[in-house]
Amino acid sequence: MEVSMSTLKYADCIAACNECADICDYCATSCLKEDNVAMMARCIRTDMDCAALCRLAAGALARESEHAVAICQLCAQVCEACAEECEKHDHDHCQRCATACRRCAEACQKMAA
Amino acid sequence: MEVSMSTLKYADCIAACNECADICDYCATSCLKEDNVAMMARCIRTDMDCAALCRLAAGALARESEHAVAICQLCAQVCEACAEECEKHDHDHCQRCATACRRCAEACQKMAA
Amino acid sequence: MEVSMSTLKYADCIAACNECADICDYCATSCLKEDNVAMMARCIRTDMDCAALCRLAAGALARESEHAVAICQLCAQVCEACAEECEKHDHDHCQRCATACRRCAEACQKMAA
Amino acid sequence: MEVSMSTLKYADCIAACNECADICDYCATSCLKEDNVAMMARCIRTDMDCAALCRLAAGALARESEHAVAICQLCAQVCEACAEECEKHDHDHCQRCATACRRCAEACQKMAA
Repeated sequence: MEVSMSTLKYADCIAACNECADICDYCATSCLKEDNVAMMARCIRTDMDCAALCRLAAGALARESEHAVAICQLCAQVCEACAEECEKHDHDHCQRCATACRRCAEACQKMAA
Repeated sequence: MEVSMSTLKYADCIAACNECADICDYCATSCLKEDNVAMMARCIRTDMDCAALCRLAAGALARESEHAVAICQLCAQVCEACAEECEKHDHDHCQRCATACRRCAEACQKMAA
Repeated sequence: MEVSMSTLKYADCIAACNECADICDYCATSCLKEDNVAMMARCIRTDMDCAALCRLAAGALARESEHAVAICQLCAQVCEACAEECEKHDHDHCQRCATACRRCAEACQKMAA
Repeated sequence: MEVSMSTLKYADCIAACNECADICDYCATSCLKEDNVAMMARCIRTDMDCAALCRLAAGALARESEHAVAICQLCAQVCEACAEECEKHDHDHCQRCATACRRCAEACQKMAA
């Protein structure tokens, strides 16, 4: 039988959470390779929080959890904070991460509305 | 800046892991709504293992972890076990889950090769 | 050098979160072995949510995350919901889980205060 | 009803995994505050892998997963690698992390034997 993510109830929000988690994880690793790592410390820390919360949110949404709305509200908040931090840095991985975080925050807010 | 998952080194394997995790989480929830839940107990338990390992693998791949190969090898093994269990059940969610697990196992084996 | 969890800033809350996660995971597995699994479906689902959130909270606390307070607030809320569901069932694992959930909710509320 | 972690089948191994995860998460955060962060990059990355795997192992053990042995084998391997990296650094948090990683590796090997 063909698998289709679109059969999941909150497919769009799940996709945004997965993407954001992956891009945050990649941003953290990439920040650790930058010349001035010390300047990236806060970005790395918020990337870790954001990735963890996005993966938890994706799972809760896929399980159609009773707590999905509350989890998405918190996820949106952490995504916004991560986007704000990433936007301060010119590195491609940070700019891309900011975009993924804004998109995920929006998807989570829409889901929670 | 545009986000593109395809910029990630192991994009295909990451996508397969995310999809498999989501479908496993959905399968677990759906199994719990079936008439004969007792018959689905092993499926639910292996879904939980598989979802957890696929999410961990996606993160390790996105971080380009030194342990990504070893993690993908274990992930492939658990995905195969989950597919075998899911294939025993006729429910749509189980059949779809088996397909996602096989696909993820293949992607993980290819990555680890 | 000797390891001591007590060197961690939020050691008590971290310990409560770890314990609650483990007891919830054990409760989910035990519920799946009960004669009337269908009656335990909601308990299993809330166990999964609670375990996932408690593990995420333990990590955020150990990393002294900026978002630890917000995460603990949500964790307390999900622990309360899990305790309420578990208290409905006479099984030892459910009653123990309810106790661990109440204890963790209290630790998280105290941390977030 | 009184909660007791000692009622769990693999209580010792679960406790070692939880402790190791927490100490790794704390080590990662502490490394990011060191003067020479660049020198700590590999330590931070292995801390992330180790924390994630230890939390997954604790959950699998608590659920008495069929895959607990295979997961503990991989967990032991990643803990050893993390201990080796941490031992290179004189910081207290790294030395403590190395001890926790060795202890967890031993507990996981014993469980998997």
